[in-house]
Amino acid sequence: MNDRTNLLQVDADRLWDTMMTSARIGPGRDQGLRRLALDASDKEMRDVFVEWCREAGATVSVDRMGNIFARRHGRDAAAAPVMVGSHLDTQFTGGRFDGILGVLGGLEILRTLDEQGIETRRPIEVVNWSNEEGARFNPPMLASAVFAGLRDLDWAYARTDNDGITYGSALAEIGYVGDTEMGGRDIDAYFELHIEQGPILEAEGIAVGVVTHGYATRGMRLRFEGETAHSGPTPMDQRRNALVGAAYLIAAVNDIGWKYHDEGGKSTASQIAIWPNAVGILPEFAQVSIDFRHPEVGGAERMFTDVEAAIEYCAARGNVGIEIVDRWRFGVERFDPDCVQLVRDAADDLGIRYMDMQSQAGHDAYNMTHVCPTTLIFCPCEQGITHNEAENVAKEDAVPSVNVLLHAVLARANRQ
Amino acid sequence: MNDRTNLLQVDADRLWDTMMTSARIGPGRDQGLRRLALDASDKEMRDVFVEWCREAGATVSVDRMGNIFARRHGRDAAAAPVMVGSHLDTQFTGGRFDGILGVLGGLEILRTLDEQGIETRRPIEVVNWSNEEGARFNPPMLASAVFAGLRDLDWAYARTDNDGITYGSALAEIGYVGDTEMGGRDIDAYFELHIEQGPILEAEGIAVGVVTHGYATRGMRLRFEGETAHSGPTPMDQRRNALVGAAYLIAAVNDIGWKYHDEGGKSTASQIAIWPNAVGILPEFAQVSIDFRHPEVGGAERMFTDVEAAIEYCAARGNVGIEIVDRWRFGVERFDPDCVQLVRDAADDLGIRYMDMQSQAGHDAYNMTHVCPTTLIFCPCEQGITHNEAENVAKEDAVPSVNVLLHAVLARANRQ
Repeated sequence: MNDRTNLLQVDADRLWDTMMTSARIGPGRDQGLRRLALDASDKEMRDVFVEWCREAGATVSVDRMGNIFARRHGRDAAAAPVMVGSHLDTQFTGGRFDGILGVLGGLEILRTLDEQGIETRRPIEVVNWSNEEGARFNPPMLASAVFAGLRDLDWAYARTDNDGITYGSALAEIGYVGDTEMGGRDIDAYFELHIEQGPILEAEGIAVGVVTHGYATRGMRLRFEGETAHSGPTPMDQRRNALVGAAYLIAAVNDIGWKYHDEGGKSTASQIAIWPNAVGILPEFAQVSIDFRHPEVGGAERMFTDVEAAIEYCAARGNVGIEIVDRWRFGVERFDPDCVQLVRDAADDLGIRYMDMQSQAGHDAYNMTHVCPTTLIFCPCEQGITHNEAENVAKEDAVPSVNVLLHAVLARANRQ
Repeated sequence: MNDRTNLLQVDADRLWDTMMTSARIGPGRDQGLRRLALDASDKEMRDVFVEWCREAGATVSVDRMGNIFARRHGRDAAAAPVMVGSHLDTQFTGGRFDGILGVLGGLEILRTLDEQGIETRRPIEVVNWSNEEGARFNPPMLASAVFAGLRDLDWAYARTDNDGITYGSALAEIGYVGDTEMGGRDIDAYFELHIEQGPILEAEGIAVGVVTHGYATRGMRLRFEGETAHSGPTPMDQRRNALVGAAYLIAAVNDIGWKYHDEGGKSTASQIAIWPNAVGILPEFAQVSIDFRHPEVGGAERMFTDVEAAIEYCAARGNVGIEIVDRWRFGVERFDPDCVQLVRDAADDLGIRYMDMQSQAGHDAYNMTHVCPTTLIFCPCEQGITHNEAENVAKEDAVPSVNVLLHAVLARANRQ
């Protein structure tokens, strides 16, 4: 780096104005956001984001999944770009920072470089990944998975929301079916800045989390098969109530989370469907999605063994059939040591305290490890509250991480 | 009775033809019915039923809840009528007999009397109660409750189905908002014939169940209050997952049912709603309807005490708030000893074996005990299977109960 870039900092106020403009697009309850993937507010946010990127001198392209790429050209037109980004969609009860800081922090980097007239060797691209949350279209991190070649485009297009609307038709409706083919091009590296979504950085008083790898996470969708019968006269020993089977399993999965609590393990059931869903009739069908995660791959395996045993036990106790119909896992990926070191070096150069840590949530960065050297940077968030309107990050807690991102990206983009 | 009525029997083949015509209106899966209250198939069934009643010489009226009354005049125009009936709506996975046998058995009585030119002192009215099942509009037995003055008409009109359609608008849509005021008139007695919905009569080889009273049944709707949070990073000890609280309670309620199984007790949870209902976010809200029933009122009270303790325990274990937002009970009513004795006498006169028994399910007859002397007659059904397409009753098992109904009604209608 030369002296000028050495001292370079983003414009904190401009960054925060931009964040607070985003915070008014798709308002949820209280101060939160409810900007579900591909809904009208997501379209509005995309339109504003594209305009901002063009104003910063970037060239915008959109791929067939609706991922938006804002490219700032480098000196070497043939060099693969350094990519930086995250997502602008939110949860049902989303906050103003989750994902958004990573995209608009990337935009702020473009603006800062543009304003200062700083050239880089490689192009820099800011990306907004579609449907990271999976709040509207399951699974989460859908569009980056297609970009990374981990999911098929047609499969992704056919995902439906609760109203039966497909991803493909919703994307067409908001006019974001781009003409850029999915992935298939060289990316030099991918950097993602995200709020921690946990309480550790705040508790430790440390400004930047250098994420080395993730919690080993496994999930599955379970189907419960029972039999309809009258909820009144049917004796207990003749009941095959799919909801009861599901309840036994949800309780058991929660107990397994507690069993591994001291090791950092946790488990979740947060989604259920049953049919029929009525007072007078025992349901014949239930579907439940569960996941569990652990700091160590071996720990996740032990949890999985416990869940398998719980499935067998709960099927017998609830007198229902239980079938695993879908499985997924993430978080076993390791981030790239060179990229991780660039983040540490940038923090050192700026005199910002950092700590190495693991990510407990899923991020598009996991998918990008399959494409190019990748890493993830965390900034603190208040009390670790997230996926909740009370999610909050102070400007002074966010800005250091954006400056670290800036310098890590610059270093990578100027690499020979 | 005179000699002619003494020997009177319904026309078994005509009854069965009528039942099988009904069995083709609103077909569900397999051989079952899915004729939900106030849907297009319910309208079709009502239209056919009204035509049949008029052909049998009855005068048809419809009240503001859509209950249909088919009146056969008696010699004494001022005498209060003897009422007989049940319901023509079905569950989501309904059978061809539940409720239907009681209404069409009543129609067959009108036809038999009409054909034989038999007069009665009192009028006889066949009633089809709207929305007995509660499959579409909760609670069950809604329209007979309004008739009996136990529920308010406007409250009932405002009940919504899963699509947010109100009872009132659905009733108007099918053209069955009648102009007859709700209840408020003298009824001499109410007789309801219903399939047992349990296995006892079949197992005992007995043709008629004389129902003296019901299982004491208590139900409640529970709300669970949690807090949204990320399903990943949030540590187990900071989670307030409303679905987990609900699962603990559903499991506990099922266990309570088993605790009282040997005494004939049973418990049910068959309906749940949660919000948000998504993979990435802990739900803040759940609502579950439960009920439990016991042959003895004291037993139901003991079960209730256990459920109250379970609510407290599960709230603590799941770290959620649990509130009882609605309560109901039925089955503590006793049927009228005189009406019950008329049923026994009719069976004795016809040489048909009967046994006294309790009803385990809810029936419109419970509501009618608040209006007039009431009783309930059961006929066997195969293996007690009901609220399931496999529900079945053989013609030869149904006909004796209809003949007993005929003679009990005749005796009551000719009473001075």
